[in-house]
Amino acid sequence: MSTVRIGVIGAGNMGADHVNTLHRHVSGAVVTMVADIDVERAATVTDAVPGARATDDPYALIGDPEVDAVVIASHDTTHADLTVAAVRAGKAVLCEKPLAPTSAECVRVVREERQTGRRLISLGFMRRFDPAYTELRDAIADGVCGAPLLLHCVSRGVSSAPGATDELSITGSAVHEFDTVPWLLDSRIDEVSWHAARSTSTVTGLRDPQLMLLRTADGALTTVEVFLNAGYGYDVRCEVVGERGTLALTHPARVVTDSARARSLGHPADWRPRFADAYRLELQAWADAVASGTPSPLATADDGLVASAVAEAVITSMKDGGRSVAVQVPEV
Amino acid sequence: MSTVRIGVIGAGNMGADHVNTLHRHVSGAVVTMVADIDVERAATVTDAVPGARATDDPYALIGDPEVDAVVIASHDTTHADLTVAAVRAGKAVLCEKPLAPTSAECVRVVREERQTGRRLISLGFMRRFDPAYTELRDAIADGVCGAPLLLHCVSRGVSSAPGATDELSITGSAVHEFDTVPWLLDSRIDEVSWHAARSTSTVTGLRDPQLMLLRTADGALTTVEVFLNAGYGYDVRCEVVGERGTLALTHPARVVTDSARARSLGHPADWRPRFADAYRLELQAWADAVASGTPSPLATADDGLVASAVAEAVITSMKDGGRSVAVQVPEV
Amino acid sequence: MSTVRIGVIGAGNMGADHVNTLHRHVSGAVVTMVADIDVERAATVTDAVPGARATDDPYALIGDPEVDAVVIASHDTTHADLTVAAVRAGKAVLCEKPLAPTSAECVRVVREERQTGRRLISLGFMRRFDPAYTELRDAIADGVCGAPLLLHCVSRGVSSAPGATDELSITGSAVHEFDTVPWLLDSRIDEVSWHAARSTSTVTGLRDPQLMLLRTADGALTTVEVFLNAGYGYDVRCEVVGERGTLALTHPARVVTDSARARSLGHPADWRPRFADAYRLELQAWADAVASGTPSPLATADDGLVASAVAEAVITSMKDGGRSVAVQVPEV
Amino acid sequence: MSTVRIGVIGAGNMGADHVNTLHRHVSGAVVTMVADIDVERAATVTDAVPGARATDDPYALIGDPEVDAVVIASHDTTHADLTVAAVRAGKAVLCEKPLAPTSAECVRVVREERQTGRRLISLGFMRRFDPAYTELRDAIADGVCGAPLLLHCVSRGVSSAPGATDELSITGSAVHEFDTVPWLLDSRIDEVSWHAARSTSTVTGLRDPQLMLLRTADGALTTVEVFLNAGYGYDVRCEVVGERGTLALTHPARVVTDSARARSLGHPADWRPRFADAYRLELQAWADAVASGTPSPLATADDGLVASAVAEAVITSMKDGGRSVAVQVPEV
Repeated sequence: MSTVRIGVIGAGNMGADHVNTLHRHVSGAVVTMVADIDVERAATVTDAVPGARATDDPYALIGDPEVDAVVIASHDTTHADLTVAAVRAGKAVLCEKPLAPTSAECVRVVREERQTGRRLISLGFMRRFDPAYTELRDAIADGVCGAPLLLHCVSRGVSSAPGATDELSITGSAVHEFDTVPWLLDSRIDEVSWHAARSTSTVTGLRDPQLMLLRTADGALTTVEVFLNAGYGYDVRCEVVGERGTLALTHPARVVTDSARARSLGHPADWRPRFADAYRLELQAWADAVASGTPSPLATADDGLVASAVAEAVITSMKDGGRSVAVQVPEV
Repeated sequence: MSTVRIGVIGAGNMGADHVNTLHRHVSGAVVTMVADIDVERAATVTDAVPGARATDDPYALIGDPEVDAVVIASHDTTHADLTVAAVRAGKAVLCEKPLAPTSAECVRVVREERQTGRRLISLGFMRRFDPAYTELRDAIADGVCGAPLLLHCVSRGVSSAPGATDELSITGSAVHEFDTVPWLLDSRIDEVSWHAARSTSTVTGLRDPQLMLLRTADGALTTVEVFLNAGYGYDVRCEVVGERGTLALTHPARVVTDSARARSLGHPADWRPRFADAYRLELQAWADAVASGTPSPLATADDGLVASAVAEAVITSMKDGGRSVAVQVPEV
Repeated sequence: MSTVRIGVIGAGNMGADHVNTLHRHVSGAVVTMVADIDVERAATVTDAVPGARATDDPYALIGDPEVDAVVIASHDTTHADLTVAAVRAGKAVLCEKPLAPTSAECVRVVREERQTGRRLISLGFMRRFDPAYTELRDAIADGVCGAPLLLHCVSRGVSSAPGATDELSITGSAVHEFDTVPWLLDSRIDEVSWHAARSTSTVTGLRDPQLMLLRTADGALTTVEVFLNAGYGYDVRCEVVGERGTLALTHPARVVTDSARARSLGHPADWRPRFADAYRLELQAWADAVASGTPSPLATADDGLVASAVAEAVITSMKDGGRSVAVQVPEV
Repeated sequence: MSTVRIGVIGAGNMGADHVNTLHRHVSGAVVTMVADIDVERAATVTDAVPGARATDDPYALIGDPEVDAVVIASHDTTHADLTVAAVRAGKAVLCEKPLAPTSAECVRVVREERQTGRRLISLGFMRRFDPAYTELRDAIADGVCGAPLLLHCVSRGVSSAPGATDELSITGSAVHEFDTVPWLLDSRIDEVSWHAARSTSTVTGLRDPQLMLLRTADGALTTVEVFLNAGYGYDVRCEVVGERGTLALTHPARVVTDSARARSLGHPADWRPRFADAYRLELQAWADAVASGTPSPLATADDGLVASAVAEAVITSMKDGGRSVAVQVPEV
């Protein structure tokens, strides 16, 4: 098993984090190249990685002989094309979610992969590697709570990014739940509905928070709250209510403080401290699979297609008065 | 302010609890009479209360000159008639919820009360006196979480009573939430919908758990989970998500145990330990109001009517595929 | 069982709280008289209690024919004499801790009581009625943690009263632990030692926090931290480490808040909200015992003497370099 | 910065864990050799590491040209000699604690290192890399709790190893606290005392739990509870009480379960799950320092000497009735 040489496309927050994690915390991987539209930004990232080169051309990176495998962390709209290019180059690729903005485009990517006859695409649904979520999933599988009947999922953030819309709440944030729930339950989402809460007055142009109901094939019902402008902190929760009991994620704080009339646990400001371990373990698992030639244990392109289809069904419900909408996963 | 002489109708668990609480923990009140269909059962209860008499005739109790005020804790189907009798006798009456099985019957009771020109009826929505719920309500009113946008309510029990039905889950258990939510938010429930989860296989003839969505006039959305056969314990939760943060009830355990590879907090087996303080404070507040001739701070007959109307709208939704149903409170 | 008529001596915070609790929350008791050096202050308290009289003469209160039983909540230095007067008048008396400032004076009071041949004195170690402490004690007795080996007790407050001294930390605050620990373990304290921590710079003239080690006859070791100027809140903790596990008090907050990057539970500012239930239940238990002529379940004068003797041993250790000091309970 | 080639001495639990962590989770490091008295055991470990060789001769490993740096995880009694051999070979060495069984032997090792004029020795006090402890230390340094006055440390395990003695509780377990406390407070331990609790009846030949008091140069007082046979789980706690508040480690469980009348968090069975991240981060930091030729951020040989000296002072106190004993760090 030799060292995997990795090229990272995108040198924004996510890309820079991946380069740093790969370089400093992943065994058996080296970053050899970083691409960004802004080559200066790429160079800032490669400065900390001896031997790594910067480029403004992602396709050059994909084709480079010193790049064995590709990480795509550039703008969402570029994911599909770059993933396809990597697939055509015969290289393993880890694409940040979403695979593509629409399920139709996801279909195109999946088709490209199928034509190669190989599983080259991994999708960055990092929660699948978060130690808390994996422990939760294992406990469900071990029957600790009995058959799951009802789930309560909550995704809250401090504030939405500029340009946030009702749809982006669903395709950008809730989509994590659309992958997590079937993965936890081992059951696909068949039906969804969307429900507006009272919207916070702290932002305009956005209905926030939103509530969604998901019905999985096993009959379980899931409530999903997505609240981008919760203000108080980044807070992801999940509770599984089963026949014999419940399972839930704990608050992740490591230190508790007593001061000023309160006992308190800190909330992170964004997802990075919360999911740092998840990203590290995901990248390690991916690098290991690439190095050994074994199947990637990450989410697949098909998983990305399914999550997109669920998001589209939710958007349909949103636009149609909150009625129940069946999830239609396009034929590939 | 003299001592209030109280007659209690019903000597089952709830009635016996009330007699014990009134006798042992409420200032300025004495129990002078207990009525039950089974007079032996009534006598068992009065044995512990010096001077109290037992009867099998609730109407005799209501008319008795040594009874200043009446508590009704007999079977749900008797509530309306007994309450009307107390009202006609001009006596203050604390009726356990529900006021009546249907909103139509509630209307009849409310009309009887209106004809007296006095507020004689109090309704036993005891959560309004629970120290945790009142602290939650005060915090909302103080703006701690900002404007409430979304609420998550959970009512779980160990196992359902014999004869439980889908409707009884709503009229007997969820009805507490139908009173609590408007009381917390100071906003009426306008619209509801009902959603089945996957049902537990531990019981038959009942869809359990159930999920309901409530829309209040302020625009806030509430999720209500009722799970009568949760198995693990009696567990009531409430979280209010607001513009500036959230507020939630804590777990009520007073002692934490480390043993056998786990740190654990006990769950009560039923509602009695959880709401013992609420019942005591409710009875004290009621006795104080009766003694001083001031308005009762408890829920009113009108509150009972409104909660019944919400329950009926939820049942309509349940029978009609989970569609949104507007709450219709009958004219009185 | 008739109503007990109670006279309360002392109309400061503690006395006024007791009058309010007796009047509003204790069954079978009425407050008929309140005494205070400052008769205006006594009158302010009686204003809220129909039929109660105010006086500046505690001895007149003790002798009054409309006073069946006496609560003493006046200055610590008056406790012994007033308790003796009540005993001589043949009346049940609930004296706030301490019974007397020194164990020698406690002996005098105990002797007076013994001469009557009756148990007339109860001592206000209210923790014995706190629902959390009683649940902890019951769990120990039930063997939940196995044989207790080690205890960790913590008593923290916001700030010390004016005039606080090293000795008063022990006789006024730590003394609660000197009663609680033997009561929890059913084993007397035989040996103690005192240890200075680094003192907070927020006060002068006081070593704060202090640490004490207590050895009970069963061999268990207890650490006691007393920190009067902890600043952040009133916080009382207790953990019992046993052969099979541990038991500890939980944080008493009923509502949890997420806001401003933190999940938080409030700390009370002083002991009153923390122990309101304990005081109520203590007064109820005492009134019940007086009314029925049964033995008081509260701490006894002998318990007060023992706690004083422990405090004196701790002070001896403090003055003598922290050496181990055997507890000497004077012969009565 | 090239890849560091590491030889690991000792193929027991700890050594095997280190090999696995270095191979699978540490960037820039490869394990090239494993030594164990039982060469079969060494071979079992190297089987999972392509290219690694097994040997029964630790000195051959130390001298091997394909070993750049050495990890020592063999029996405690071998630590000093092997560390000295590595130092003489001019190789960086990470020795598991203790550096040596006695402070006198630690002196010998430190002297050997000083003669080289280089810092070659790192000591495996892994808590310094545990994310919870480092967050606690940072918060203290940031003044979150104000000046530390009092610390409460607890180290509990399920059951003691065969052959456990009173002394081994101190030199093997409490020694972690002797390194942690000065590291947290940035202040050396000057004075100690030892106090027996009531011993558990579940083992013989051992006083367990034990309590120690540590006085640091800043005046702060630390209580240390070590309880090897706590039975219920592996549980490490630390609370720092400061002038403005307190800081404490939280329970590390990631999932909470409601079942069978309890809400519960699991305790690990031993230190490995609790400190897996600490070991990984420690090994990563060490490998990074070796690769870059920068000073190791791990504990030093001097730190090991100091911890040994504290342990010896505690043992002196234990043998001499619990008196206060000044810590004497031998001159090097």
